[in-house]
Order: sequence, then structure tokens, then C-alpha cells
Amino acid sequence: MKVLAVCLNPALDREFVINGFTLNKLNIVPNELNRMTPGGKGVNVAVILSKYNIPTILTGFVGGYVGNVLVSELRKVGPLLTTSFVHIRDETRENIAIEDTLNHTLTEINSEGPFITNEAYELFLKRFEVLVQKVKVVVISGSVPRGVPLSAYGELTNIAKKYGKMVFWEARDEIITESIKIAFPDVLKYDMRRSEKILGTYLEREEEYINAAKEFIKRGAKLVILSYKTIFDFVATAEGVWKFSPKFEIDHSFLLGSGDTFVSAMILSHLEGRCCLDMARYGYAAAVAKTKYLGKEPPKREDIEKTLEAILVERVE
Amino acid sequence: MKVLAVCLNPALDREFVINGFTLNKLNIVPNELNRMTPGGKGVNVAVILSKYNIPTILTGFVGGYVGNVLVSELRKVGPLLTTSFVHIRDETRENIAIEDTLNHTLTEINSEGPFITNEAYELFLKRFEVLVQKVKVVVISGSVPRGVPLSAYGELTNIAKKYGKMVFWEARDEIITESIKIAFPDVLKYDMRRSEKILGTYLEREEEYINAAKEFIKRGAKLVILSYKTIFDFVATAEGVWKFSPKFEIDHSFLLGSGDTFVSAMILSHLEGRCCLDMARYGYAAAVAKTKYLGKEPPKREDIEKTLEAILVERVE
Repeated sequence: MKVLAVCLNPALDREFVINGFTLNKLNIVPNELNRMTPGGKGVNVAVILSKYNIPTILTGFVGGYVGNVLVSELRKVGPLLTTSFVHIRDETRENIAIEDTLNHTLTEINSEGPFITNEAYELFLKRFEVLVQKVKVVVISGSVPRGVPLSAYGELTNIAKKYGKMVFWEARDEIITESIKIAFPDVLKYDMRRSEKILGTYLEREEEYINAAKEFIKRGAKLVILSYKTIFDFVATAEGVWKFSPKFEIDHSFLLGSGDTFVSAMILSHLEGRCCLDMARYGYAAAVAKTKYLGKEPPKREDIEKTLEAILVERVE
Repeated sequence: MKVLAVCLNPALDREFVINGFTLNKLNIVPNELNRMTPGGKGVNVAVILSKYNIPTILTGFVGGYVGNVLVSELRKVGPLLTTSFVHIRDETRENIAIEDTLNHTLTEINSEGPFITNEAYELFLKRFEVLVQKVKVVVISGSVPRGVPLSAYGELTNIAKKYGKMVFWEARDEIITESIKIAFPDVLKYDMRRSEKILGTYLEREEEYINAAKEFIKRGAKLVILSYKTIFDFVATAEGVWKFSPKFEIDHSFLLGSGDTFVSAMILSHLEGRCCLDMARYGYAAAVAKTKYLGKEPPKREDIEKTLEAILVERVE
């Protein structure tokens, strides 16, 4: 096994296409427009890595009927993806998206998600310590379920560092803020899909992003990636700060999954011997390549290589 | 085993309470307002019978993840309910009801339901022939999935009659119309929740109901129950026709499940030795008793006995 992917709050993503979806009425979903796929950022990263032929173990919490469906669907992904979840009593999250292509609405119904008991969390920490010794890289990505402390990313990283493993994070500000009080990852990528907040402050100007990135490097991260206005990134290492831009126009409606592709491609690139800025460039190229089409499939290697030529890397500090 | 309950198109009923449910928005369902229960009329009858201490086998088609959840939930009902489903590849029906108690809306999302292959249907007919020999009574209730002929009730009744079993039906007009071309049940109850149609014709006047009921008796049924204006019933036997009415006001919002209670209580009453009009009276009393409260639980035996005094049985022919 090369990678341990941690998804503390996985989900079953369900998609119903109902044209003319109406309140207070009986709506029928045709079978061919009724889909379910494994979800949650850590799950997505594990699935993408296994598609890039990287043997990956996926861990976190699953429970109930929804958890069983999730694990069964993950088993279908292929032999390179292994799951080692801690089983809980509550139901795993179920995220229903009702797409109406007639009225152009997207109505979402998400379950509240499970509550993780102290006991289950302790069990998970022990499981993590066993699994982490089997791999080269640890990636922790996505939300934290109720009952698990926001500092969990830091606690897990402390354990991983005991065994000298490389650690990647992608998470929202609240998780990062609490977790870096305990430990810093090697690669820190902010998930800014819902807010532009860094360490509790809303950022606006480019300079603010540059300073924030430098600050994380000073405090212990080796590579920091802060997305800026959705399609740009500020990337910092000990050597400096760079701004990444695409050389062509990005279709914003195809952005879904590009963050997970970014992280997965960085890990792929790292395992192939690239470091620091080159690793980030590879991840960014993959994320940009992902915006050229719809769907969950990761971009082909050739497409990533080609896209490397279509991105601009400017030193800003 | 005493009863074989047939539910050709079972469902998993899911209930989400979302106050302020809004289109084109992310809606969260709190865990305690997210429920799932086995559904489909034949399933409901089997569950009710087992709660009345009658050992019951439930058969029909189940498939996929939803089918697995349904069977697991049915296993929790108790030791008196046994399932013997034919497993299919398609997913069992999933019926989602989104209740908004703030805006007083009920938005339903139903899956299209499975398609039954010829092979699965043939397998089911063989299974049915084995199971039917183990019981005294057969009850067939509810819709017919795609791929199964509307005459299926008739085909199954032919097999049951070969072994001299008593047969109960509750179904909609299209199924009854096609099925009685092949065989008549002993007890025929019309499901008129969605239309007042009998043998393809919309009925209005009491006389029309009386004549329709007599016609079914003439052609082979021993007991016929046609509901009239939701809360009344016309009941026919070889001896005559009666009109059943409640002596008190019925809360229409509590009618859910009263049809299944009616059928179950008739079977209960038959197994205890009652016949014909008395059996129908017992079923009607149970259905009326069921309208006194909300929820899926069947009425207690004492409540049914008490309600027998609160119904009016008038001879109309």
C-alpha cells in the first residue's frame, strides 16, 4: 500500500434527475436518471488514486444501511482500493441532489450525518496508527463529523509524523485553524468552496493571500496552496510564492471534483519523485485538465502532461 | 404457517420531515426526522397479521440495495413473519415522502420501480406453488411491477385453487379486470384510493355499486367489498348486499393504512372461524378503529370488538 486516505465523514451521493420537479406533488424518478456514487473528499481522493494505479487504503467512519451501500460501491472500484472503516451505529451521510434540467434548479436534501462516540473515535485513532505504518503518504481530506474534534487532522498528523510519513491536508478553515495548533502537514491545501476565510479572516487582496501562505510556511508547512477567485492558486514553499493561472478560459460549471483531482495528482507526482513547486504544478495542471469535461473520472495522464503547457506559473515573492 | 401474503411490488417507504422545504436550496433532514419503513400493501398486510400473532410468509420480488434494506427491516418485525422473496437485479421501489409541517406540503419522490424479467416471474410462480401448499390462506394485495402481467392475480389464484386454498385480493381496477378473466378470489376487495372505477367504468350512484358487487358474486367471488365515498362500503355475498357505515365521524387524515387493516382483520376473523358477512363486519370495524389514531400500528383486538358496536350494517338488497 502506498497511500492512506482518511475520510472522516464519507457520504453516499445520490442524484435524481426529475424534470419539472414540483413541491406538494408526486414526482417519479426514471431508473436511468437515479444514480448513486461514493462521496466525501477523502473518498474521492482514494478513488482517483486507485484509478491512477496507486494502491490506497481508505479509512474513516461508516454506519447503517447507507454505510453498507457505500462500502459495497467502493468494492466495485477495483482491487487497488482497500477499505478499513470503523463501523458506527449511526447512518452514514446521504446527500440527495435533485436536478431539474427543465426549470434549472438543484434541490439538495442532505442527512444530518452521524454522531461519532468517543469510543469510536478512540478505536479509529488506534486503527489509524496501525494503518499509517503500512504506507508512504497520508492524505486527510474533507469535513469532520459531529463528535470528532476539529483538531482531529492535527492529532492524526502527530501520529503519522511519529512514523516519518508525508502528510497532505485539504480542509476548511475551521478544521485547519484548530488542527495546526497540534501539528502541521507537509502539504496544506485550503478548501475554499464555501468561504474565502483563512484563520478566521476573510481575505480579498492578492497580497493578503501571499502573506497568509508565507505565514503557514514559516510555521511548519512545506507546501501551501490557497485557491484564489476559484480558478487561480497561490502556492508557497520555503523558496518563495507563486501564482498559478490557466492560459485558457475555464468553464466554471465543470469545476466539480477539481480540488480532489488537484490533491490526488500531487500525491501521484510526489510518489513519482517530484517535489515542492513541481508537485503543485502537476496538481494544478490536473485540476485544470479536469475542468475540460463533466463527470467524476479523473483526467488521463496525457491530458495532464499537455495541460502543464497551458498553465502560467509566475513568481510573486 | 397460516397465511401466504403476496406483495409483487414491495417498497421501502422513507419519510423526511423538513420544515421549510425549499426548491433550489440545500435542505437538511435531522436524524430523528428521517425514517424508513417497509411498504407495499401486501407487505403491510403481512406485518399486521404477524402482529396479530398469525404466522405469515411474505413473498414477491426484491432487489438491489433498497431490497436489502427492506428485507433487513422486515426481519426486525418479529419471528412470526418469514420472507421468501425472489431476488431480482433491479432496485426495489423507494418512496420518499418529504413532509413540511410549516408550509403544509407533502412532496413525494418515487422511484420508477423494477422491471421483472420473464425468468424471474417464472421462478416466482414455481416458488409460489411450493409456498402455497404450506398455508391455509393466500392474500394478494397491491400493485404489479412492470414486466408482470396484470392477470398475475388470476394466475396465482389458479395455482392456489389447485390446492383448495382460500384467496383474498385487494387491488386496483386494471389488475382485477385482467385477473378475473383467469380466476376469481374468494374475497374481492377493490382498492379505490385513486379512482372510483370498476371494470373500466366510473361509478357514482349507490345502485351502480350494488349492481357491480352482485355481478362479481354471480361470476364467482364469495365476498365482495367495494368502498363507497371513502368511509362506506358495499358488501355482497350470495345472500345479499349490505351497506356499512360508521356511527361516528371519521377523521379523514387518519385513513392511511385502514384498507390494509381491513384485509388483515378479515383474514384474522376467518382463521378464527367467522364467515362471510361477519368476517367483513370484523374487517370494517378494524378499519374504522384504525382511523381513530395516526401511525402504522394495527388497532388492538379490544378496540376492534368495541368498534363492532359503532358501525351500522344495513341490508340494501
